Amino acid sequence: MTLTKLAIIGVGKIARDQHIPAIAGSDAFELAATVSRSGGADGVENHEDIDALLNARPDITALSLCMPPLPRFEIAKKAILSGKHTMLEKPPGATVSEALALTDLAAAQGVTLFATWHSRYAAGVAQAKAWLAERKLNKVEIIWKEDVRRWHPGQDWIWEAGGMGVFDPGINALSIMTEILPDPVHLISATLAFPENRDTPIAADLTFSGPDDLRVTADFDWRQEGPQTWDITVQTEDGTLRLSDGGATLHIDDTKQALEDTGEYPGLYARFADLIAAGDSDMDLRPLQHVADAFMLGRRDTVAAFHD
Amino acid sequence: MTLTKLAIIGVGKIARDQHIPAIAGSDAFELAATVSRSGGADGVENHEDIDALLNARPDITALSLCMPPLPRFEIAKKAILSGKHTMLEKPPGATVSEALALTDLAAAQGVTLFATWHSRYAAGVAQAKAWLAERKLNKVEIIWKEDVRRWHPGQDWIWEAGGMGVFDPGINALSIMTEILPDPVHLISATLAFPENRDTPIAADLTFSGPDDLRVTADFDWRQEGPQTWDITVQTEDGTLRLSDGGATLHIDDTKQALEDTGEYPGLYARFADLIAAGDSDMDLRPLQHVADAFMLGRRDTVAAFHD
Repeated sequence: MTLTKLAIIGVGKIARDQHIPAIAGSDAFELAATVSRSGGADGVENHEDIDALLNARPDITALSLCMPPLPRFEIAKKAILSGKHTMLEKPPGATVSEALALTDLAAAQGVTLFATWHSRYAAGVAQAKAWLAERKLNKVEIIWKEDVRRWHPGQDWIWEAGGMGVFDPGINALSIMTEILPDPVHLISATLAFPENRDTPIAADLTFSGPDDLRVTADFDWRQEGPQTWDITVQTEDGTLRLSDGGATLHIDDTKQALEDTGEYPGLYARFADLIAAGDSDMDLRPLQHVADAFMLGRRDTVAAFHD
Repeated sequence: MTLTKLAIIGVGKIARDQHIPAIAGSDAFELAATVSRSGGADGVENHEDIDALLNARPDITALSLCMPPLPRFEIAKKAILSGKHTMLEKPPGATVSEALALTDLAAAQGVTLFATWHSRYAAGVAQAKAWLAERKLNKVEIIWKEDVRRWHPGQDWIWEAGGMGVFDPGINALSIMTEILPDPVHLISATLAFPENRDTPIAADLTFSGPDDLRVTADFDWRQEGPQTWDITVQTEDGTLRLSDGGATLHIDDTKQALEDTGEYPGLYARFADLIAAGDSDMDLRPLQHVADAFMLGRRDTVAAFHD
């Protein structure tokens, strides 16, 4: 199989830790170039900006956009208008409206556009979805608590307006929630805790409503020291399902399930290859929509200042 | 023509001032009943809740939901599941996700669902849209400034989380913006001013981006005493268009245009009748989407306490 030539735009921590190794192990893509102002990856051709890349390498047909959401729209637009298949790190936009605009643009241009949600490719998610599809749900509890100092040291942009704060990890939980629940839910109340010196929340409590009085609660907190918690527990009429470790571990009624783990980012690139082959796009914006809804509907509490 | 029997759910100020007179003048609907806990309208059968209405009056086939957005979802769901054609006052939901859920539900039930944006039926809007469709836009400026004490005296719900604050009138401007601009725009920056004792903003500054570097600015403020301002100015390569008085007045290059004014709410009910006749729904959620985006992307400033 001929490998599709792909370039990464934005070579930061997520590109080095996840994208580059996943592409190296892919049987569909090869990393043909990068775009980065602060140096690219060892042994890979680098360009200063997307215009230089597009001029120099017409043979590259796929782009993976790894920069933060705020500057991403204009680059995604250029990518799509140049006829490149485009993959977007999460979240797919700084606003839902811009992600909708990109969706329309990609459809008009006939290119593949893929809003990635890496947590959906955690080892236990597909099996959890299949198990829940056949059952009546009573209650869903999401606990997503981590230490922001450990996972986002010195990343100022997540604290600036548009940076989403604790929803940066929380949207991973919402991407699993929207994948595994058989029916849609919508937010009915939210409380967001803003540090007095920051523009994005450090914690959030959410309650969603679904069919037959189903309630889903989500507790996101960036102030968790010690053990980290990324758990989703679903009580059904026919037993309790627990996804933990961000979706990597699955228990059903306290019995640990055997899982095949192919890795989150390898899963994303395999899916991107399938979408390109089929001529399809996948722009599921529900996780981002729930975040926007939480900011609109939520009550704001001011809490202690946060210092990195 | 046989009149379609319609009931109003939620008989408050907007129902009395706008809906009831518009239905009285309609050649498509008759007001057959109301649902209100605080008494209905003179000479019209009233029920305590929607369940009582649905049991008593199977002959009523259309419902107009006029209560605030927070309690509206469950009632809209009942209406749709009972097979009633349903019209929603703006905004169509407390969240975008719930409005999307209602859209899907109405499609599955085969009933008409109509998210109304009354300002789109102001006298100058259709003509403004037609004039702009053929021109290249350079710049759009929206100024929407009114005195909240005059228009929302003692309405506590607009100051509570989910009540939207200044976006309650501002969404009218956004509904005109999304109607008259030929291309989609998306928010790129926002500042929201929250009174220190309130949970919703009293003012907002928004900047949107569109094709060919088009910029749209919007200045919403609820602290305007004296003359009130509801203006949208569009500079094009071929002259300047100004919609003022909330869309009721149209100038092109300072020449006042002759307009036919059929009234905003009569326009809404005529459209509802057309949608029912055609078996269609109209759930354009873009104005609400822009509000959710503004809450997610916007920087929050704290300003002086507001007392009614």
